[in-house]
Amino acid sequence: MKALVYGGPGQKSWKDVPEPTITDPGDAIIKVETATICGTDLHILAGDVPAVEPGRVLGHEAVGTVVDVGSGVSGLREGDRVLASCISACGVCRYCRSGSYGQCLGGGGWILGHRVDGVQAEYVRLPFADLSTYKLPANVTDEAAVMLADILPTSYEVGVLNGRVRPGDTVVVVGVGPIGLAAVLTARLYSPAHIVAVDRAASRLQAAKQFGADIAVSADEDPLEVVQAVTGGLGADVVLEAVGTPQSFETCTTLVRPGGRVANIGVHGKPATLHLEDLWIKNVTITTGLVDTYSTPDLLTMLAAGQLDVGQIITHRFPLGDIMAAYDVFARPAETGALKVVLSAG
Amino acid sequence: MKALVYGGPGQKSWKDVPEPTITDPGDAIIKVETATICGTDLHILAGDVPAVEPGRVLGHEAVGTVVDVGSGVSGLREGDRVLASCISACGVCRYCRSGSYGQCLGGGGWILGHRVDGVQAEYVRLPFADLSTYKLPANVTDEAAVMLADILPTSYEVGVLNGRVRPGDTVVVVGVGPIGLAAVLTARLYSPAHIVAVDRAASRLQAAKQFGADIAVSADEDPLEVVQAVTGGLGADVVLEAVGTPQSFETCTTLVRPGGRVANIGVHGKPATLHLEDLWIKNVTITTGLVDTYSTPDLLTMLAAGQLDVGQIITHRFPLGDIMAAYDVFARPAETGALKVVLSAG
Amino acid sequence: MKALVYGGPGQKSWKDVPEPTITDPGDAIIKVETATICGTDLHILAGDVPAVEPGRVLGHEAVGTVVDVGSGVSGLREGDRVLASCISACGVCRYCRSGSYGQCLGGGGWILGHRVDGVQAEYVRLPFADLSTYKLPANVTDEAAVMLADILPTSYEVGVLNGRVRPGDTVVVVGVGPIGLAAVLTARLYSPAHIVAVDRAASRLQAAKQFGADIAVSADEDPLEVVQAVTGGLGADVVLEAVGTPQSFETCTTLVRPGGRVANIGVHGKPATLHLEDLWIKNVTITTGLVDTYSTPDLLTMLAAGQLDVGQIITHRFPLGDIMAAYDVFARPAETGALKVVLSAG
Amino acid sequence: MKALVYGGPGQKSWKDVPEPTITDPGDAIIKVETATICGTDLHILAGDVPAVEPGRVLGHEAVGTVVDVGSGVSGLREGDRVLASCISACGVCRYCRSGSYGQCLGGGGWILGHRVDGVQAEYVRLPFADLSTYKLPANVTDEAAVMLADILPTSYEVGVLNGRVRPGDTVVVVGVGPIGLAAVLTARLYSPAHIVAVDRAASRLQAAKQFGADIAVSADEDPLEVVQAVTGGLGADVVLEAVGTPQSFETCTTLVRPGGRVANIGVHGKPATLHLEDLWIKNVTITTGLVDTYSTPDLLTMLAAGQLDVGQIITHRFPLGDIMAAYDVFARPAETGALKVVLSAG
Repeated sequence: MKALVYGGPGQKSWKDVPEPTITDPGDAIIKVETATICGTDLHILAGDVPAVEPGRVLGHEAVGTVVDVGSGVSGLREGDRVLASCISACGVCRYCRSGSYGQCLGGGGWILGHRVDGVQAEYVRLPFADLSTYKLPANVTDEAAVMLADILPTSYEVGVLNGRVRPGDTVVVVGVGPIGLAAVLTARLYSPAHIVAVDRAASRLQAAKQFGADIAVSADEDPLEVVQAVTGGLGADVVLEAVGTPQSFETCTTLVRPGGRVANIGVHGKPATLHLEDLWIKNVTITTGLVDTYSTPDLLTMLAAGQLDVGQIITHRFPLGDIMAAYDVFARPAETGALKVVLSAG
Repeated sequence: MKALVYGGPGQKSWKDVPEPTITDPGDAIIKVETATICGTDLHILAGDVPAVEPGRVLGHEAVGTVVDVGSGVSGLREGDRVLASCISACGVCRYCRSGSYGQCLGGGGWILGHRVDGVQAEYVRLPFADLSTYKLPANVTDEAAVMLADILPTSYEVGVLNGRVRPGDTVVVVGVGPIGLAAVLTARLYSPAHIVAVDRAASRLQAAKQFGADIAVSADEDPLEVVQAVTGGLGADVVLEAVGTPQSFETCTTLVRPGGRVANIGVHGKPATLHLEDLWIKNVTITTGLVDTYSTPDLLTMLAAGQLDVGQIITHRFPLGDIMAAYDVFARPAETGALKVVLSAG
Repeated sequence: MKALVYGGPGQKSWKDVPEPTITDPGDAIIKVETATICGTDLHILAGDVPAVEPGRVLGHEAVGTVVDVGSGVSGLREGDRVLASCISACGVCRYCRSGSYGQCLGGGGWILGHRVDGVQAEYVRLPFADLSTYKLPANVTDEAAVMLADILPTSYEVGVLNGRVRPGDTVVVVGVGPIGLAAVLTARLYSPAHIVAVDRAASRLQAAKQFGADIAVSADEDPLEVVQAVTGGLGADVVLEAVGTPQSFETCTTLVRPGGRVANIGVHGKPATLHLEDLWIKNVTITTGLVDTYSTPDLLTMLAAGQLDVGQIITHRFPLGDIMAAYDVFARPAETGALKVVLSAG
Repeated sequence: MKALVYGGPGQKSWKDVPEPTITDPGDAIIKVETATICGTDLHILAGDVPAVEPGRVLGHEAVGTVVDVGSGVSGLREGDRVLASCISACGVCRYCRSGSYGQCLGGGGWILGHRVDGVQAEYVRLPFADLSTYKLPANVTDEAAVMLADILPTSYEVGVLNGRVRPGDTVVVVGVGPIGLAAVLTARLYSPAHIVAVDRAASRLQAAKQFGADIAVSADEDPLEVVQAVTGGLGADVVLEAVGTPQSFETCTTLVRPGGRVANIGVHGKPATLHLEDLWIKNVTITTGLVDTYSTPDLLTMLAAGQLDVGQIITHRFPLGDIMAAYDVFARPAETGALKVVLSAG
């Protein structure tokens, strides 16, 4: 079969590899119908994730059809259409028992396209298949479902739920790339009074307004002034960090009101400065996190009920065989306007 | 009357000042029976709190007897024995309505011995008296009650409750001076499996064991190794910062397990480094805060029920008139072994 | 001035009474601009609330202008346009300190039109004015604001928040009179996947659909079958009781899924049967409550931000002087279609 | 092998049955070392649980050694000493994913000694072995651990945690048989100010005091008067029902303060009367539940740390072969003083 294979920093190819087979009673094999590319895949290609070894098939977001299951799989059958989540879960360890699948100690967590071969391929082996896949309702499309493999639960759990967004809140989203836009979308489920989008790119701010932000402000202007204006000088109830730089995080901690929450969604490579000389007295809560996907069933329910218009986050579509071109488009968002690109097996 | 008056950095004196009088309908005047000195008072004397102007009477922890009340006070009468809390509350602003008295926008918060004259005096005017004082049960002594003016609710709310200590947890308290020891004491209300005390001073570690820590480790050794040993390599469920330095805070963030909580109690004068490159993926919650005193009624109930042995935190006793000597003892804890010093009007 | 005066069971009149004056430092006097009538007023007139004595001015929902304030009032001035809430709060007792104003032990709670003269009058004295009134943003109309005096916070706090409605939930509202419709409206703030309205009256079911219920079912048919169909046989996540009869409550407890919540909003005059032989094993939570109005500031924020279309709940408008006619219309909803009737001083 | 076999209402025998074998990849077989008898076993023998068919081996509380595991079991090996919990969990269904194992839709829940053969036998097959067993720390004895198979997590989860016991609370436990005593024991983990035990039997009230209740009152006297005396007339913060009769439940709802919680632990066979005419206005929360055992790992941690003296709940010990005599003693607690009887394979 064909797969997108990592060849070391800067190297990738769409080439023939052996088809995967069941190696553990809990495995399932799925034929990939729809997949997408994540910013993390670009980080891997940049050489930033050393745990990924050359020869690894990339990708952790897919929808497909079950073609084989191990003897220990109880909830799946051949022919089931499933979402393959970015997070796998042993289901037995301390963290899995409390729904913190992302922190799995039993061999799960983020493993697809990282420690085991991923989903940017014609077929993929899914370990711990019972807890790492979600059967899809008939009225949910592949394209919509694949947005729930990573980006929606990440922005919802690590951003909106960790930040405890509540009706009437003022929420600031710093960074409105794909994850930040998904945060705008899912924050609206809690009916905040205001969503303020902050970014450098005018096109992204424009997108944020379409996704439901009512205020958009350039990071180069004065977000603090805007936030104070809308909150009577107090600051925001919730600030979501969706960039991943020290500067962005530090901005977030200046925008939050006393008693407010800063939820970090961004992936960081460097330390930030925490201004405890200002913050110690302010009753602020700061959270971090990897997605656990505990919310995926709820998000699927909402998708099936027509509550989440995730389609608007998809800007480009390619056949799976054109994945090299898709990577090229996705890697140059400033030029291409790419948010999420969808690959279909056709 | 006599009062301890701040005279500018490095300057204080016990001298004659006019007796306070009712200036607002919500005021009460109390005769101070018992008071104590806080580390914050030393910070003021060091010139670190510029909002405190020369001429200010210091002190924000006292027990006394009501001698006069304004026309708008509904819950107090002459002769009531009350705790004067470190936090005053207007009761009307957004923060007070939600019990966040420490963040009061209506003129309250920490004002005693800061923005208005404090309690290290023979008499004191208490603004917003209804919400800033607590009537004392007959079986609660002055000495025990005065520990509830600041140190107990601070360690309990900002440490134990913000950190969400739960039965069976492993809790680390970094810094076991008076506040850290009070954190050990109040953490025990939630029956953690282990309390690990970390400090540089052997005498403080010894005290921590007497207060209920089962493990004590020098900050100069390797707290991480000790915490990992007791938690099977995972890290602590809750880490309480009770020092107030960047190094101490950074240590705390290395000791916490994925999914754990770091509750900052310390007063910080400098920024710390937040290692987001490690923490972004760890589902960690970090909280800060000034005490709100919403827990004071509960703590009084527990004191009256014999659940809190706060007396052990008191190491020295002086007549109120000897407050200058008391300051001297309190300011040199390494030599004197002072934790809390109590002043009595006699 | 004129006021609507209770004359004993079945008796009411719009007649001259003395204007109110400040009797306590915490009082304010407001000129009533807009008021409304509550189902509770009808209960009083039926003689069901013996604490209301003949001679009492009725009414506990109004918007008006402050014309006088007592010396202990800190947050109001003459000329302020305020919402007069159905709940007054001493601000000092155990319950008020935790925001449970409805359970006030200090003389507050539901007192207007009950234990003290109410707001269906040209002027009214409001005790504990600081905590019992809410200043109105300029862009909030009187008509919209008066819906926040009782019906919106009641349905939101006692229904939606007690029932912990969450995104993706299936919510059933049993009884869609004014309170039930307000529950439909405020449940939507949490983006449930489905809202099922249950009632006997086709016109109310029709209204429920306009307010946002996606499924409407007659109480005379089989609500359980409908709820099971939409929830895969499990039952509803949240069931809100908004009728106040034993039968209705018992229906609610059959509609809830294991692990679900039943939030009682209805006012009950008789005991219900609790089928513990079925429920003991089902992890069900049942809540009751009088509104506390802790959510009123949040609801005002949402109203000002255009998030709550409360106007649709108003069906009839009268000059304040025609309140006798308004009562007549409001008392015969089956014939008149009345939901809420608004009275304006003009 | 020998097993205690149900023979229909009133019938049981200790007799030869075939040894169990692995029938599903998720199964494990354990050699039972220690077991106990539950009040539920007596209900089965009385014919009250029709789902239990004649020929069924009874028992759902044991400690033993793993002697065989299915191919799908990841966390257990031959020779592991494990607690066999009363609740089995498929780990995949909606309820298991959120830790509500007792409500498992995938074939788990309470099945041992109910729908499949139980643990009162020399060997037992444990379905879903990974999630239904807990490896035991070396310093936890069999006798202590077997108390965590049902009685401790039941009283803790369904009583103490559902009732949200907090430091300083007044907690009433109505019914202090084995479950009620375990509720007293586990309530203390949250440091309530007062625990009031209510029962008819003086011997049980005496036991409750030994377990940590500070007030004991006969159900035939006036528990309400006692509770009001200790709470200043308000009522209890938390009331735990541990009897299972309508009268007992109704007593509980009279003892709770406004804003308080009633947590039902008792197994009920009849409906109770819910006095909504009093309760609708009181902000009361009532919870029910079957144990989920999500707390079992925490309880084991506490047991290993020496925080739970569960041994005091064991009154009698028998060899496993004398189980018929053990049943006889356990079934006549008024005469024998039996709380929990422990059976050892020896």
